[in-house]
Amino acid sequence: MEHQSQRYLSFVDLMGLEQRYRAAFVNSLTGFKSVALIGTINKERQTNLAIFNSLIHIGANPPYIGFISRPDSVDRHTLSNIMETGYYTINHINESIYHQAHQTSARYSREISEFDATHLTPDFKLGFKAPFVKESHIQLGVQFKERINITTNNTVLIIGQINQVYFPNNCLCEDGFLDIEKAKSITCSGLDSYHKTERLARLSYAKANKETSLAKLGYIE
Amino acid sequence: MEHQSQRYLSFVDLMGLEQRYRAAFVNSLTGFKSVALIGTINKERQTNLAIFNSLIHIGANPPYIGFISRPDSVDRHTLSNIMETGYYTINHINESIYHQAHQTSARYSREISEFDATHLTPDFKLGFKAPFVKESHIQLGVQFKERINITTNNTVLIIGQINQVYFPNNCLCEDGFLDIEKAKSITCSGLDSYHKTERLARLSYAKANKETSLAKLGYIE
Repeated sequence: MEHQSQRYLSFVDLMGLEQRYRAAFVNSLTGFKSVALIGTINKERQTNLAIFNSLIHIGANPPYIGFISRPDSVDRHTLSNIMETGYYTINHINESIYHQAHQTSARYSREISEFDATHLTPDFKLGFKAPFVKESHIQLGVQFKERINITTNNTVLIIGQINQVYFPNNCLCEDGFLDIEKAKSITCSGLDSYHKTERLARLSYAKANKETSLAKLGYIE
Repeated sequence: MEHQSQRYLSFVDLMGLEQRYRAAFVNSLTGFKSVALIGTINKERQTNLAIFNSLIHIGANPPYIGFISRPDSVDRHTLSNIMETGYYTINHINESIYHQAHQTSARYSREISEFDATHLTPDFKLGFKAPFVKESHIQLGVQFKERINITTNNTVLIIGQINQVYFPNNCLCEDGFLDIEKAKSITCSGLDSYHKTERLARLSYAKANKETSLAKLGYIE
């Protein structure tokens, strides 16, 4: 990667780009993103499934997870279902289902469930209100906690508490790290690019007077 | 991945975990994360560099990017510098510098710059106030826009406008997609696991009456 081949765009350049081109470009700048399927249901028992690439860790104590959504007017039912029932599921995407996961971003009408349209299986567990995705290997049952309006561009940050976690037993390490690569979770970039991963290393907790060193994985058998 | 080997943890189970174990576990649940180095400077011209794994796309029009920070009291200078100057840089991490990037998370005192401590090179460009990381291949110059306090757990969401973008010319595709894998950007999971990626595919814009198909990359020469 030679620096003389670097290109520069300013804010004015970005604002001058054609809208879809700018969306593709700016969505690439955040780096690799968390991508997952959010499962919901409304009071009429109509299920909904939608892909989101804006998941974010909010805190571990208590366990909170967030995602960014466009406002209700243009959102395709996920946000309104969450507001109606207070519960949703977050399901990791793996290599076997990423085509189907991407397809949930199509604009289906409210009476069509994306579970049916994409042949993914709704999985109701332990009486949890919202449907999990059976084909997903890491599944979170989440309870709505807080809705934060982002006034600068009229999006919302939805924060929920993790009430249920399902994960493959052979992916848990001794120190609590869950090896999501071993669980076949994938990542995405931009609006439509999906990637599997290859671990470079786990690194030890960084200290000021010490060089970074490798940490072991140490799976629990 | 057989379902009979799935394990379950409830909210009560999570709250009962030892604190560091819970942090490692819950930080793994979000999926693969955007990871980058944020460069800042204070009024006394003291530079600071810190790794963040909580970057999030906020919007493309205008180009806004966000990240989650712990409150000022425990943050190591990034937030206070942004509030002081209004500018910061976001720099993608590649395989050549991820050890150094991770090392910036050590608790250095304010008078020590993480640029010096980790042997990364501050790069001041086009009169932009904050330092970029010279060894990074994709570099964003960002202007602070909004600080949102997340009351549920006392963290903050910092939103900024992308004023400058530097990227390798051979990574831009015809439709605006920037191939960050080709630019060698990496991803992370949990608190300390770093991963390179391998593209599965770009998928076409999803439509309700049509099967998902592959999209071409189409680099601009």
